[in-house]
Amino acid sequence: MGYTKDDQLAIDTIRLLAVDATFTANSGHPGAPMGLAPAAHVMFNKFMSFNPSNPKWLNRDRFVLSNGHGCMLQYALLHLFGYKVSMDDIKAFRQVDSITPGHPEVMDTPGIEVTTGPLGQGFANAVGLAVAQAHTAAEFNKPGFDLITNHTFAFFGDGCAMEGIASEAASAAGHLQLGNLIMIYDDNHISIDGDTKCAFTEDVVKRFEAYGWHTQWVKEGDTDLEGIEKAIQIAKDVKDKPSMIKLTTTIGFGSLLQGTGGVHGNALKEDDCKQVKKKFGFNPDESFVVPQKVYEMYHKHAAEGAAKEAEWNKLLEKYGNEHKELAADLKRRLTGKLPEGWEKKLPTYKPGDKEQASRKLSEATLEAIHEVVPDLIGGSADLTGSNNTRWKNAIDFQPPSLGIGEYGGRYIRYGVREHAMAGMMNGISAYGTLIPFGGTFLNFVSYAAGSVRLSSLSHQRVIYVATHDSIGLGEDGPTHQPIETLAHFRALPNMMVWRPADGNECSAAYYMALTSTTTPSILALTRQNLPQLENSTLENGIKGGYVALENEKADITLVSTGSEVCICIEAVKYLKDKHNLTARVVSLPCFEVFDAQSKDYRLKVLPDGIPSMSVEVMSTLGWERYSHEQFGLNRFGASGAYKDVYKKFEFTPEGISKRAVATVDFYKGVKPRSPINRAFQQLI
Amino acid sequence: MGYTKDDQLAIDTIRLLAVDATFTANSGHPGAPMGLAPAAHVMFNKFMSFNPSNPKWLNRDRFVLSNGHGCMLQYALLHLFGYKVSMDDIKAFRQVDSITPGHPEVMDTPGIEVTTGPLGQGFANAVGLAVAQAHTAAEFNKPGFDLITNHTFAFFGDGCAMEGIASEAASAAGHLQLGNLIMIYDDNHISIDGDTKCAFTEDVVKRFEAYGWHTQWVKEGDTDLEGIEKAIQIAKDVKDKPSMIKLTTTIGFGSLLQGTGGVHGNALKEDDCKQVKKKFGFNPDESFVVPQKVYEMYHKHAAEGAAKEAEWNKLLEKYGNEHKELAADLKRRLTGKLPEGWEKKLPTYKPGDKEQASRKLSEATLEAIHEVVPDLIGGSADLTGSNNTRWKNAIDFQPPSLGIGEYGGRYIRYGVREHAMAGMMNGISAYGTLIPFGGTFLNFVSYAAGSVRLSSLSHQRVIYVATHDSIGLGEDGPTHQPIETLAHFRALPNMMVWRPADGNECSAAYYMALTSTTTPSILALTRQNLPQLENSTLENGIKGGYVALENEKADITLVSTGSEVCICIEAVKYLKDKHNLTARVVSLPCFEVFDAQSKDYRLKVLPDGIPSMSVEVMSTLGWERYSHEQFGLNRFGASGAYKDVYKKFEFTPEGISKRAVATVDFYKGVKPRSPINRAFQQLI
Ligand SMILES: [Ca+2]
Ligand SMILES: [Ca+2]
Repeated sequence: MGYTKDDQLAIDTIRLLAVDATFTANSGHPGAPMGLAPAAHVMFNKFMSFNPSNPKWLNRDRFVLSNGHGCMLQYALLHLFGYKVSMDDIKAFRQVDSITPGHPEVMDTPGIEVTTGPLGQGFANAVGLAVAQAHTAAEFNKPGFDLITNHTFAFFGDGCAMEGIASEAASAAGHLQLGNLIMIYDDNHISIDGDTKCAFTEDVVKRFEAYGWHTQWVKEGDTDLEGIEKAIQIAKDVKDKPSMIKLTTTIGFGSLLQGTGGVHGNALKEDDCKQVKKKFGFNPDESFVVPQKVYEMYHKHAAEGAAKEAEWNKLLEKYGNEHKELAADLKRRLTGKLPEGWEKKLPTYKPGDKEQASRKLSEATLEAIHEVVPDLIGGSADLTGSNNTRWKNAIDFQPPSLGIGEYGGRYIRYGVREHAMAGMMNGISAYGTLIPFGGTFLNFVSYAAGSVRLSSLSHQRVIYVATHDSIGLGEDGPTHQPIETLAHFRALPNMMVWRPADGNECSAAYYMALTSTTTPSILALTRQNLPQLENSTLENGIKGGYVALENEKADITLVSTGSEVCICIEAVKYLKDKHNLTARVVSLPCFEVFDAQSKDYRLKVLPDGIPSMSVEVMSTLGWERYSHEQFGLNRFGASGAYKDVYKKFEFTPEGISKRAVATVDFYKGVKPRSPINRAFQQLI
Repeated sequence: MGYTKDDQLAIDTIRLLAVDATFTANSGHPGAPMGLAPAAHVMFNKFMSFNPSNPKWLNRDRFVLSNGHGCMLQYALLHLFGYKVSMDDIKAFRQVDSITPGHPEVMDTPGIEVTTGPLGQGFANAVGLAVAQAHTAAEFNKPGFDLITNHTFAFFGDGCAMEGIASEAASAAGHLQLGNLIMIYDDNHISIDGDTKCAFTEDVVKRFEAYGWHTQWVKEGDTDLEGIEKAIQIAKDVKDKPSMIKLTTTIGFGSLLQGTGGVHGNALKEDDCKQVKKKFGFNPDESFVVPQKVYEMYHKHAAEGAAKEAEWNKLLEKYGNEHKELAADLKRRLTGKLPEGWEKKLPTYKPGDKEQASRKLSEATLEAIHEVVPDLIGGSADLTGSNNTRWKNAIDFQPPSLGIGEYGGRYIRYGVREHAMAGMMNGISAYGTLIPFGGTFLNFVSYAAGSVRLSSLSHQRVIYVATHDSIGLGEDGPTHQPIETLAHFRALPNMMVWRPADGNECSAAYYMALTSTTTPSILALTRQNLPQLENSTLENGIKGGYVALENEKADITLVSTGSEVCICIEAVKYLKDKHNLTARVVSLPCFEVFDAQSKDYRLKVLPDGIPSMSVEVMSTLGWERYSHEQFGLNRFGASGAYKDVYKKFEFTPEGISKRAVATVDFYKGVKPRSPINRAFQQLI
C-alpha cells in the first residue's frame, strides 16, 4: 500500500508507450493497455516475482495476457523491467521481423509465456499453467523445500469471457480448485461492436461463482490502486479456489475517445496523443519517453526478482543433496530431453503378433513408457474408455478434497471440453516440466482447432491422441467420421499428423512426438483391429514413410496410411492373381516427417517411372503431393458396421485393384515423374 | 394432468424400443432414451403440435435432441406418432443405408429437424431455431393473425452442458430473451468417464441464471409426470426469458445397470433386456413390441396435430387475402427459391472501376440485395466494422426491452461467439424461412469448425463471411493469418469455399451461395484493396474457375485465387519483359463449383500440354489437384504492413516469375497432361 506519484508516473508511462507505439505503427490496440496499466503496475511491481535476466527461471510467476491484442501493455512492461526488449523494439511494433509482433508470440519475445490473441486461448493457457504448477509442486515439493510456489496471473477481456473455450476452461479450473490462479477480468463495457450491451448482458461474476471460483469486484479500476492490491492479496490468500477479480476500467483511459469503441483497435489521432500526454504531465511533443524514476522503480523490482532466483537456486542445490533423484529429474526436464534409454521401453511387434486397434497400441505404449517418462501427463475429453488414454494404475489429477485423486496424479479428467483441453495442454507444455497428451475422437479435434493451431505456432510439445479416426469407427456414422480432418491438420505448419498402420508405427509416432521438442503431434488411431505388418519397424516408422512391401519392376505403387495399408497389401495379391499386375506398397504415416527426409530417400520410396495411387478412407485433398492418382472419400461416410461401411465405399482389395488397374492403364506408355520431383523448393 | 397407466405404458414402450434396437444393433446408447422417456412423453404428447403426415408444416413445434447419441428416443417417438419411420426402420438402427443412423440426421429421417450428435451442436441449433421463430413471427404476424407461434423444445445432457458452444449459445439466448425456447437438461450425473463428479461439479442452474435464463428443477424426472408437465407449462408462460428445466433422471432407468456409465453407450446384455421387460410388464421373450393402446394414444395426438395444421392453413389463406404480398413472400420462402429477378441487383464492375477490398465488395453486395432478398438475416461475431456485414439502415435483432433493436431486425450481434454463431446459423437455416450469414475473420471460422462441418453434412444454406483472409491482413500477424484454413474447408464435402479476386467474382460467389439451396458457403475476403479484372464477369465467376488472361501458345498457366490473381496478371508482363515467356492466368475462386463443370470446360481452362503453377499465399495442400507446381506459404506468416509481408514471402511479380521460370524449365521437353485428366472418377 502507500502509492505515490511515482506509481502514477509508471502507470502513465506504460499508457503513453502504448499510445506512441500504436501511433507510430498506425495500427494496434491502445485501449486495453491504457485501461489496464494500473492493474498491471500493481500486479507486476507488488506481486509478481520474475527475473528479466533469466526469463526461464522455473519458479517465476507466470503472466498471461489473454486479450493479446493489448500486447503493447506487455511489451512496455517487459521493456521497463529490463527484459531484452529495447526501445527500438518498441518503436518497431508490428513491423516485419521485429520482436514486437501484433499479438504476443512466445517464440519472438523474451518474457512472453504463451502466444495469445485469438480470444479465449490465453485464458485456457493460464488454467494449463496453473495445472502444471499444481502438479509440479505436488511432485517435487518436499518438507522444507517449497520449490514450486509460483502463481499464474492473467488478464482477460469481454471477448475472452464470451468465447466458449474460456467457459470450458473456467469450469474446469473451478472443478480443479486451482488456488494458484488469479485472473483479472477487464470489465470495460466495450468490445469491437461497441457497448457490450449489444450482445453480452450476462452476469459474469455470478457465472464464475457457479463454476466454483472466488470472485471480487474492484469498481474503480482506473484509479483505485489500493483496492486492486487488496483484491489481489485476498485472491492470493484463497488457496482452494481460482480467483476472478472483476475490474471495472475505462478503455483508452485519458484519450478523448476513452470509454468508446473508437479507442479499441485504432491508434489515437495526433492531437489526441498530444492531449493525453499533456494530461499526464508529459511533454506533448516527445514520444517514447520513460522517466528515469520509472526505470529505477522497475529495475529495483527486477533486481529483487533476480535475488529471489539466486535464493531459489541455492534452495535447489540443497534440495539436490537431500533429494538427488528428484533434483536430477527436475533439471533434466528443463532441458527438454527425455531420460536416457527411455526409448527401449517402446513396444515392438513382429509380423503375426496379435491384431490390435491402434488406439489399443497407443494404450500399450503409454502403459510401457509412463514410468520412464515421468514428464507425461494426460487425459481425455470424457472419452477415457474409448481413447484408451489411461494407464492401469494411473492416479487422477484432482483436488484432494474430492477424494478421487490428488494434484500429484497424472491423469486429467478434462470433461467434454476439447477446446479447453487443447488450450490447457498448450499452457501445461509452456510451463516447462511436463509433456501433455489429451484424447478425443479425431473428428472432435476440430472443436479444438483454435488451440491446435497455436500448439503449432507456439512450438508446444503436445500430443493429441485422436482415436476413431475414420469411417472405420462404424455405427456412430457421418457426424463422427472424419473426412476433412487430416487434410486440415496436414496443412497446418509445424504439426506432425501421424496415422500409424500397426504397432511399430505407433511406437515410432510416440518416439517422434516425444523427442520433437518444438512440434506438436496428432496421432490418428483406429477403433478397429489392425494386423502387424512385415516391414514395419521403429526405424522405418520414424522416417514418416517407407516401403511396406517391395516388388521389383512394379507396375504401380500403392501409397497409404493407417488402416488401409493392410488392405493395400491384400490388394497386391489380388492384383497379381486377377490382373497379373505387380504392385508395391508404401506406408506414409506422417507427411511432415517424410518431407524432412533426404530427397534420395524419398525417391527410393516413391520412385520415378512408376505410377502411384494413394489409398486413404477420407478426403484425397493433399494426396496429389505423394501420388499420381487418389482413391479416397470426398463425401461423408455412413452409419453401419465398419466392414459394411468399407465395403459400401469399396475400400476392399477389389475396390483398390479396380482403381489400380485404371491407373496403370492411364499411364501406359508414360514413365511418370515421381511426385517427389518438383520444379522449385517451397519457402520455409 | 391426470396421468394413467397408459401414459406409463407409452413411456415403457419407448424405453423398450431403445433397448431392443440397441441390442439388435449391438451398438448405440440405450441409457439416455430410458432416462428421458417420461419427459419426452409429456413434452410430445401434452405440449408439442406437429403433423407426422407433413413434417415440414411451418408452424410446428420444433424438437432438438442435442444429446443426439440418444437418438433411439427420437426414432421411437417418430415411429409411434406415425412419421414415416417404420418398425423395420427401427430394426435397421445403425445399419448401412437405413434411415435410422447412429445419430439423428436431418437428410435421412422425416421428423428430424437438425443433425445432432457432436455435443453442444443441437443446443446452438435450438437457439437458432428460436431466433428464426422470433424473427419470422415479428415479420409476418399481424393483428388477428398469429401465424408463427411455435416453440422450440430441446433436450441436452451433461456433455452438451460442458461444451463451449453451448455456453456461448446459452449466453446469447439469455441476452436475446428468447421466451420461445424451452430446454430440458438431463441431469443424470453420468458422462462417458463415469460420475460427473470427476470433471463437472459446477452449479449449472446458477450458471444459466447468470446468463439470464428462467430456471426450474424437477427432482424426480423418472416418475413425476405432473411435475414435468407443470414445469414445462411454467416455462411456456415465461415469455421474456429462455427456460431451462433441470431434470434429474436415472440413466438407463429399469436396467440392472441403471444410474451407471455401463448403460450409457452399450446395449444391455440379453438377461438385462429380459429383466427390464419383465419389470415393465412386457413379455421378456418378445422384442420391438408396441401395445395397440400406445399407437392409439399417439395417433390421436398426431391427428390433433394434423387438425391444427389444417386450421393453420385456413388462417394462412385468410391472411393471404388481407396481406397478399406477405403471404406470397412467406410461401415463396418455403420453396427455397429467391424472388424473381433478384439477381439483377447484384453489383457488376468494369475494369478500371475503383479498387476495393473484397470485404467492401461483399458489403456492397449485401447493401444492394438485402431489400430484394428479405430472407437474408445476418450478423458478425463482434467484428461488424471489420467484416462489413451490416447494411446501412439495418435494424438490430434484439429483444425490444433493451431499446436497441427489435425481433423484426435483421442484424444479429453474435458477440465473440464464433462457434455458437455457426451452430445458430444452422438452426436458423433449418427453420425454413431465412438465409443466415455470419461474419468473422477467416482464421476464426476454425473456432466454429464443429458447426461448419454440420452446415455441410446437413445441407444448410448458410454463408460464412470470412474476412481478413490471408497474410494480407498485415499487422495482426501469424496468430490471425490463415495458412491451413482454406485447405481445411476445401476438403470438407458439400462446402463452397470462395475466394473472389474482384467485384464480379464476389457477386458470383453470392449468387451461388444464395441459389445453392443445399450447400453452405465460405466467402474468403480480403482486408486489402483489389483491382477489377478484365475477364471477370458474373458468368465466368459462377463457373468456379475461368481464364482471367488468355495467351496463345503460352509457356505456362498461372492458377490463382483472390488477391493473388492481380499479382499473377502483373507477373505475366514481367515474364514477357524479363524472360520472354508467355503466361496465361486462370482465376479459380471455388474448387467445388469448378469441379462441377464439364470436363471439356475444365480442360479449356487448364489445358493439356502446358505446365501450370498455382499461386496462393497459404498452404499449397490440395493445389496439386489443379496445377503441376505450387507457390504458396507452407509456414506461418508475419506481423507487418501487408505489402512488406507479401514482399518478405516473395508474392510479387518477380517472386512469381522466378518460380514460373523454374517450372517452365522443369517441364522443358515434356508436354504435361492437365491435372484435370484423371485415371478414374472419385466416388460421390
Ligand atoms: Ca472489453
Ligand atoms: Ca449425462
